[in-house]
This record gives sequence, structure tokens and C-alpha cells, in this order.
Amino acid sequence: MAIELSIKNIDNGGGPFGAVIVKDGVVVAASGNSVTNDNDPTAHAEVNTIRAAAKKLGTFDLSGCEIYSSCEPCPMCLGAIYWSGIKRVVFASDRYSAASAGFSDEMIYNEITLGNHERTISMEQGLSVEGEKVFEVWEKYPGKIPY
Amino acid sequence: MAIELSIKNIDNGGGPFGAVIVKDGVVVAASGNSVTNDNDPTAHAEVNTIRAAAKKLGTFDLSGCEIYSSCEPCPMCLGAIYWSGIKRVVFASDRYSAASAGFSDEMIYNEITLGNHERTISMEQGLSVEGEKVFEVWEKYPGKIPY
Repeated sequence: MAIELSIKNIDNGGGPFGAVIVKDGVVVAASGNSVTNDNDPTAHAEVNTIRAAAKKLGTFDLSGCEIYSSCEPCPMCLGAIYWSGIKRVVFASDRYSAASAGFSDEMIYNEITLGNHERTISMEQGLSVEGEKVFEVWEKYPGKIPY
Repeated sequence: MAIELSIKNIDNGGGPFGAVIVKDGVVVAASGNSVTNDNDPTAHAEVNTIRAAAKKLGTFDLSGCEIYSSCEPCPMCLGAIYWSGIKRVVFASDRYSAASAGFSDEMIYNEITLGNHERTISMEQGLSVEGEKVFEVWEKYPGKIPY
């Protein structure tokens, strides 16, 4: 179903990716990639589907769900999967096939494993003391919802 | 500004994070984390701000922009930064401070550097031949927009 969706998505003007989220054997959400259609660089199939499933289930916690993707999730999408609590991922093509088709998945995997000062983008730390104080405010805040 | 936003965001019921995107010295977008308020596990400050900036500028390509974050971006957000084309990141606190405050950023960095079969979540590949054929369809599609 994720693969079928990825092919349909090309004709819809989107990237060649599709994803489906299932809970207890029932499809909760399915979506293609809509980066170019929505002018949203985060609108990968997996992110779109996680957002739709969370909205449908009324919770940010998708533990108990599984995600099926036409391609191995990129680091952004894999990060989203961890934050969502999803524990099982099934994918068809992989980061190397995606790279051959012109997508940056493999490059980003390589970049993320590097230290902050070794990357092709500039990363600088500043006001770290002030930044850390925010977590002290958070820890004292009585109404906080852990996620 | 990102730090101030992260503190305000706690009082607004969100996570203790804020981000600001700047282009040519002008603020394009600013947002806190809204995971719990929006029931969206992808709604980190950086992702929210990237989505808002892309919408405002009417493009998925934010090259030429810089992002300032109250905390080191997690792998999901760092992936989003790469996909957006942003080349400069400035952050205050880091993944280790975030971990001390109960957030999973450091854990997810560690997981992403592992192979697919070494992770705490299950990752399986299936229908890889069918999956790879999707990229053949994509490469032949005349209307495709690279991103």
C-alpha cells in the first residue's frame, strides 16, 4: 500500500514516497510526500503520516502503531518515529536507492554521525548558560507534560 | 530571542524550546515547541519554525536563512534543517542538558548512528525490488521537481 501510494504521489506532483501507519491491524493514516506541493521541507511521507495519525488518534504518543514506508526513513523521519513512540518500521527501498535517484537521505545520515564542527553546515553554540537555565524553569513548572 | 521564546513557551503549555529563522538580518519566523498542545510529535520548535518560514517565503528552499535555537537540534530537527537548505545553526543548550531534563535527543543521536538491526526499535526491509522500481518511474516522470 505504501509503494502504491508512492507511485500515485508522483502523478500528484509529489516526491516518490508513501507511508502507512497501522494500529492493531487497522490502517490509521496514509500519506505521500508533499514537500513541493505544500512548500514544506518537512513534509516527507512518514512525517505527514505521523502527523495525520496523531491528529486522528488525538495523542502525540503513537506507541502501539507500526509504520510502513516505500523507502527507508531519512534521519528526520527516523527521529520523528522515535519521538512518536512507534517501535516497528517496515520499508521497501533503502537510502542507497534514494541517493541514486537524487535524494539526500544517505548524505544526511553521514552528516548526522559527524561532530558539530565536522559538518558541511556551520553549527555554533552560544549563550549556553542562559540556555541551560530554561531547563531549570521547566523542571520547576508544575503543569509540565512529559513527552 | 529563541531562549526568551522557550521560557514563554513553558507557560503556554509547550515544551521548553524555541527557535527563530532569520534571513538577511530580518526575522522570518519564530516558534516554540507545540508537541503536547497540538498532539503532534513532530512539532518541535525548529520544525515548526521551518514550516512557518517556508510558508511565509512561499518555497521549500530556505537556503540563505539561518536558524537560532534555544537548544541543539535533535536528529529530526537537524534532518529538517538539511532538507530545508539552511546552512548555519546557532544553539544555546545542548543534547546533554536536554537529556538531563528528561528529553530523548541524545538517545536518538545514539540510535541513528547504529545499523538498522542494532536499534531498540524493529526495522525490517521487504519488497525492495518493488520499492526500487518507484524510483525508475520517478526518473522517467517529466514533471518532477527536484528537492
